[in-house]
Amino acid sequence: MSAPDRRTGRSGSTRRQFLLGGAVAGVGAAAAVGGDAALRAVAAEPAPAPPHGEGTVPFFGPHQAGIATDAQAHGLFVALDLLDGTDRPALTRMMRILTDDAARLTQGEPALADSEPELAAAPAHLTVTFGVGPRFVDRARGRAPDWLGPLPAFGVDRLRPELSDGDLLLQIAADDPLTVAHAARMLLKDTRSFATVRWSQQGFRRAHGTVRPGTTMRNLFGQVDGTVNPVPGTPDFDEVVWSTRDWLAGGTSVVVRRIGMDLDRWDRLDRSGREQSVGRYLSNGAPLTGTREHDEPDFAATTEIGFPVIPEFSHVRRARSEDPAERIFRRSYNYDDRPVGDGISLSGLIFVSYQADVDRQFVPIQRRLDRLDLLNEWTVPVGSAVFAVPPGCAEGGFVGETLLA
Amino acid sequence: MSAPDRRTGRSGSTRRQFLLGGAVAGVGAAAAVGGDAALRAVAAEPAPAPPHGEGTVPFFGPHQAGIATDAQAHGLFVALDLLDGTDRPALTRMMRILTDDAARLTQGEPALADSEPELAAAPAHLTVTFGVGPRFVDRARGRAPDWLGPLPAFGVDRLRPELSDGDLLLQIAADDPLTVAHAARMLLKDTRSFATVRWSQQGFRRAHGTVRPGTTMRNLFGQVDGTVNPVPGTPDFDEVVWSTRDWLAGGTSVVVRRIGMDLDRWDRLDRSGREQSVGRYLSNGAPLTGTREHDEPDFAATTEIGFPVIPEFSHVRRARSEDPAERIFRRSYNYDDRPVGDGISLSGLIFVSYQADVDRQFVPIQRRLDRLDLLNEWTVPVGSAVFAVPPGCAEGGFVGETLLA
Ligand code: HEM
Ligand code: HEM
Repeated sequence: MSAPDRRTGRSGSTRRQFLLGGAVAGVGAAAAVGGDAALRAVAAEPAPAPPHGEGTVPFFGPHQAGIATDAQAHGLFVALDLLDGTDRPALTRMMRILTDDAARLTQGEPALADSEPELAAAPAHLTVTFGVGPRFVDRARGRAPDWLGPLPAFGVDRLRPELSDGDLLLQIAADDPLTVAHAARMLLKDTRSFATVRWSQQGFRRAHGTVRPGTTMRNLFGQVDGTVNPVPGTPDFDEVVWSTRDWLAGGTSVVVRRIGMDLDRWDRLDRSGREQSVGRYLSNGAPLTGTREHDEPDFAATTEIGFPVIPEFSHVRRARSEDPAERIFRRSYNYDDRPVGDGISLSGLIFVSYQADVDRQFVPIQRRLDRLDLLNEWTVPVGSAVFAVPPGCAEGGFVGETLLA
Repeated sequence: MSAPDRRTGRSGSTRRQFLLGGAVAGVGAAAAVGGDAALRAVAAEPAPAPPHGEGTVPFFGPHQAGIATDAQAHGLFVALDLLDGTDRPALTRMMRILTDDAARLTQGEPALADSEPELAAAPAHLTVTFGVGPRFVDRARGRAPDWLGPLPAFGVDRLRPELSDGDLLLQIAADDPLTVAHAARMLLKDTRSFATVRWSQQGFRRAHGTVRPGTTMRNLFGQVDGTVNPVPGTPDFDEVVWSTRDWLAGGTSVVVRRIGMDLDRWDRLDRSGREQSVGRYLSNGAPLTGTREHDEPDFAATTEIGFPVIPEFSHVRRARSEDPAERIFRRSYNYDDRPVGDGISLSGLIFVSYQADVDRQFVPIQRRLDRLDLLNEWTVPVGSAVFAVPPGCAEGGFVGETLLA
């Protein structure tokens, strides 16, 4: 009955199994619980492959889901500001409720008092990842660490406050847009007495199944984006991403930067100019010194007349450090808002980077890119926020308990 | 190599077949044409099922695609205003260019001078459907028919001009959001010297493969939406949808109405109240007098105390006419914009209805719903537009030629 990647056996699934088992025939029963015609249809006929909408990602565990999880097609990032009255006990109440919502919804179960339970039936690899900002930590523990707050100012920044910062981040991601919409609604309803929405950004990648699993995403410049990235499940990933410090142990930090991309000016550049600006081919993302995407770039290689093949100003050269500590895990999304009038698109990247230590890993890279990176010609950061991402929790616990319990 | 539903053998696909055949090994060749690492990877290993991103819908034919086509997951609706100088010859030039763009992009080929050819490689059932407004027809032929223009005013309307009307509609739909974004950009670039964007609405349904094919969509009220609808491929559908008149023969008309749905107030209603307001169960969309989605409603059935089981004020009763001519084909999309502050969501339906004759088929239904429909309590039309949808064209022709040639 379940999708192959359903890896949990939580109690809540009994009711859903019942529904999936096609036991609901009468209207009374069907009306009483959250059934879905589609899922029942699956049960009725012997289906060759279950729809991927049934796929779930485990919620409970040492780390929050949605980080090492293969990036889903749709990502919604919502930052909230805490109300003045949201004190420590209120934070605990809020995080218990949100944890409960997320635990249910990600497993394809309706939230408690879910107003549209049928919309919860197709989790489509839904994950909900919580991050907390400085004010949250202040109220929870008394003093937020210095790194938790706005990044140092960079010369390239044109930050707008209404797209920056925040006290609580919800990263809601799934392979189905209706699933994301429903989960967002359920979670935000439950934050209402504690917080207001500060900003909200909707992003996308290729749909589930458009290309083969494991294909690196493309951004709206047409670039293969995400090639050099720690691989989830490896010790390398664990070292780059998971913190070992204090209440953040098993957690991490996330930088969310909204970076506008000027597609019109980019398109005026010829193909080779675009490839030089990054240091990789547009066709398949191979470095300019190689032929395949994952070939190691040869930064020492020079052209016949002595210039580096991968230019000094290129994004990949500038983004790579000689210090192996200066690495991050990128998990970005495209955005494409539709302006009216003469503008064709307001497009860009919701740049999302996870790292154990913002100051040591992220900031030096961003500083280098700020000083020199040809890509800066066509990109401009308009929003920026940093959150601490607490560790995951076990069943019965809640996200944020290491700060609040 | 091709997806099972690739039904065309257009010349342009040769180059793509070449790419898919994995013949591109060297960087020179890879850089010269629009390859895609993902698609090439498919070619390299024997893949069990090709990614659905390769699926194409034929562009040329007697009818435009995107109407009888199974509704894709993502739908973008863009309405343009013609510039003053866009006269008849300019309209012809514009429609030739847009037809060429659409013919290529829908088959997974880059547009002419495509700035990001790699983004064209996964058509994901892309369709581009063109509609024309009154001013377009005026300039093309001298006089637009009376039905082509704003609908009569309805009491429920709270229309905003910036979400209404327009001279040219692009309905761009695909199962992949990146495909939609790229197609929109290519098409809109080519409209630049002829028109400006008036409004733009992005909508979604369940992702491809989330649920089994043929499952009726759900809207954000959680309702099964689209049950009673003519079935593409049947004579009934042809009669409801395709016009036989003059330059519109083989074409149709489309009504696009943006209807806000007040989820908060809706959620305060109990389940049975919600079901009464529509006349169908939320669980599986069955009529209140039946058990399965496609059961015929029994409008005569009464409760023990003599009330109709399907209330007089219910949406399905009010939407159904005794006159079989008064029928439409609905192909709507959900929208869910993210407000900041106290609002949780700005949600609703991009209601899209195709019919051969707006006045005879659509208007009487909308009039009846305007007079009485309990759903009006929670919904409010904020945008409205009507377009004539010209017939399709053959290779070498262009959409709009029956008006312009
Ligand atoms: C819109 C803005 C940006 C675009 C379009 C962009 C695009 C790219 C592309 C195409 C690559 C090469 C393929 C890959 O390895 O992913 C890349 C690599 C990389 N980018 Fe960015 N990037 C952007 C912003 C940033 C920012 C803000 C940072 C961090 C501060 C960053 C850090 C990196 C790193 C660390 C790499 C890998 C470098 C290596 O090869 O070691 N990028 N980026
Ligand atoms: C946000 C607004 C609307 C919502 C939420 C909505 C929802 C629904 C639902 C749940 C059904 C029952 C299932 C089905 O057959 O699809 C339905 C049926 C229908 N609706 Fe709507 N609807 C809306 C607006 C409209 C409008 C504006 C029209 C036309 C003017 C319309 C025309 C119809 C028709 C013709 C039916 C089929 C009735 C029959 O059983 O014969 N609806 N709608």
